[in-house]
Amino acid sequence: MAGNDSTVFRTTTTAPVNIAVIKYWGKRDPQLNLPTNSSLSVTLSQRSLRTLTTASCSSHYPAVDELTLNGKPQEIQSSKRTLACLSNLRAQRQALESADPSLPKLSTLPLRIVSENNFPTAAGLASSAAGFAALVRAVADLYQLPQSPRDLSRIARQGSGSACRSLMGGYVAWRAGEHQDGSDSLAEEVAPASHWPEMRAIILVVSAEKKDVPSTEGMQTTVGTSTLFATRAKEIVPERMTAIETAIQKKDFPAFAEITMRDSNGFHATCLDSWPPIFYMNDVSRAAVRLVHEINSIAGRTVCAYTFDAGPNAVIYYLDEESEIVGGTIKAILGSSAEGWEGPFNERMQNVTGGVSLDKLDSRTVDVLKDGVSRVILTGVGEGPISVDEHLVSETGEIMSRK
Amino acid sequence: MAGNDSTVFRTTTTAPVNIAVIKYWGKRDPQLNLPTNSSLSVTLSQRSLRTLTTASCSSHYPAVDELTLNGKPQEIQSSKRTLACLSNLRAQRQALESADPSLPKLSTLPLRIVSENNFPTAAGLASSAAGFAALVRAVADLYQLPQSPRDLSRIARQGSGSACRSLMGGYVAWRAGEHQDGSDSLAEEVAPASHWPEMRAIILVVSAEKKDVPSTEGMQTTVGTSTLFATRAKEIVPERMTAIETAIQKKDFPAFAEITMRDSNGFHATCLDSWPPIFYMNDVSRAAVRLVHEINSIAGRTVCAYTFDAGPNAVIYYLDEESEIVGGTIKAILGSSAEGWEGPFNERMQNVTGGVSLDKLDSRTVDVLKDGVSRVILTGVGEGPISVDEHLVSETGEIMSRK
Repeated sequence: MAGNDSTVFRTTTTAPVNIAVIKYWGKRDPQLNLPTNSSLSVTLSQRSLRTLTTASCSSHYPAVDELTLNGKPQEIQSSKRTLACLSNLRAQRQALESADPSLPKLSTLPLRIVSENNFPTAAGLASSAAGFAALVRAVADLYQLPQSPRDLSRIARQGSGSACRSLMGGYVAWRAGEHQDGSDSLAEEVAPASHWPEMRAIILVVSAEKKDVPSTEGMQTTVGTSTLFATRAKEIVPERMTAIETAIQKKDFPAFAEITMRDSNGFHATCLDSWPPIFYMNDVSRAAVRLVHEINSIAGRTVCAYTFDAGPNAVIYYLDEESEIVGGTIKAILGSSAEGWEGPFNERMQNVTGGVSLDKLDSRTVDVLKDGVSRVILTGVGEGPISVDEHLVSETGEIMSRK
Repeated sequence: MAGNDSTVFRTTTTAPVNIAVIKYWGKRDPQLNLPTNSSLSVTLSQRSLRTLTTASCSSHYPAVDELTLNGKPQEIQSSKRTLACLSNLRAQRQALESADPSLPKLSTLPLRIVSENNFPTAAGLASSAAGFAALVRAVADLYQLPQSPRDLSRIARQGSGSACRSLMGGYVAWRAGEHQDGSDSLAEEVAPASHWPEMRAIILVVSAEKKDVPSTEGMQTTVGTSTLFATRAKEIVPERMTAIETAIQKKDFPAFAEITMRDSNGFHATCLDSWPPIFYMNDVSRAAVRLVHEINSIAGRTVCAYTFDAGPNAVIYYLDEESEIVGGTIKAILGSSAEGWEGPFNERMQNVTGGVSLDKLDSRTVDVLKDGVSRVILTGVGEGPISVDEHLVSETGEIMSRK
């Protein structure tokens, strides 16, 4: 990777979306993005959803670092979080260069970073997690940093809290940590995707009104005003973290499911208990909750679980072996009234013939879902960031778009 | 009231609806209806909403006590709660008769009780509170019991917890009490209606789907499963009780309003945190929440407050002096799209010309309310039960209907 003066150094990585089953909500230190409680997520397959990011640097770039997201140049200087990540990564590179003077002085070169999501921002999926994970991973690769994903998660966390969990695949915990400097607030793999590869997720994208409150603002409102939040953060979540890690180790889906659903409900309860109250779930979300409870009740066992982030979209987890009853029922309800069934996980769904008879479901639940779900994303547990050769910056430094 | 063998003894009373501002949710003793926490309500005027109940007894009635509600004979023997109230009242009468042998032996006579609400049950208003308060008050009057409303509240509580608060007017606290036998779990007047007579309430009746879970069942689900409930019952509500009593004494509407709204939100948060989760508020309820916050924000001061019981209806409290901005805005939004504007409190509303310009409100909030609110009930703080002469049982014992 040594080069002459006009060389463009570049690396490209993909990074996944993750959906928490124990929710991150509340910062004990907003500056360092240190959370009030630990959280745990499932990394989703990049065959469905991913961010693709090329990090490049060159001496012939303009002096100021540049970032382009989905074709739009970003005001990088006004994003403290991006600057924090970049200066941190650059410092790590500087340390390498100091230790080994033969290394090219990449830390002195301006960066040009180009990033694209393969899903619409309007879908209301937490794109910042995948985005910052990809940015950190791509620049770390560019700089050939020796740090592990665990170490890098400390940097990604400063970009967007939940981004730290997107640096790894499978089942990932973000340990809240205790140190004031955040040195022990980082992500750890609880189990790789290969430990429990049968985990599937159907995302029901709900035709969203305007989002109630941005999550960065909302979570601090909750921390500051909810009378129930401290109990959640200090007592309830630590117990749930232990219990769900055990459930994952044992591949105990019913336990995993109940904890997931209860934590989603508890998180939204503290939002409602905030002042002023924050609502992310709407009537369509509630219909998805009812549907999951009805399917489990009709099945006579726990075959699916819902969770909701800071928005109305439902994510429904289930195991591949339950595709007939879970996927089949959802397909029977939504059929062609929702887009997005295509995609790499659709093959399994094309062949489902089963599912709960719609007559057994509450007809209002069915109607509300049919009207309110605009898009379906089929996915499952997946791997962490992957290095790829499809660069978004050309060999001579031009920005290229894959769209 | 002495009489010959065929005399029909009768008394009639009205009783009010009350709407809690600190919510009753959870029993520590389901048998005795002892609550997990104290609660506080505003008694609503009987000019708008009331139950009318005649209690009568006669030796020529059939041997078994009878109860007719809204024209329909009730299976009194299968209602443990009704039986508990009647046996309790009868025992009090027996004690009187034992002490004074000259009294007619009413306690030995079968009862015929006839009760009518002046509002549709379908409106989703807590009719059991007014119903049991009227039943207890009417029979106590029939038996000429010397007990105070406070004492009688102990009996009404066993019929329906919140009924104990409908035995008094104005601002009423139900003290949870500590004794196992419930002897100290009773209602107390915090302030009479005349202390703060300007309190008004607009009830927005929401076209209800089927109710999620009956409150008797729902509250015990919450007690048994919500991880946040104990904090609410033990820590949060006691503080709020003290604070709202002070606000009432001082007629401090902003404080009253904030506590009221926060307690409603906190109660619904513990419902959502229950397992399985319980939802009473829907998108129309949320729109009412938003409207209240928007009106207060535009007014630049707290002029109205929402509260929600175990259903989607919004009750919006405000002071008469704010009728223009609060009532005017709601009237401008709902206009003729909601029924029920007629009634004794409508006079003030007919003359309102003010209100927030609808352009300043979120248009979706306005649309959701316009579509989702079917009926409006205008009312205000009012008195406790009142003895009246319009009996629902004739001099000869026949059931009469006022409808």
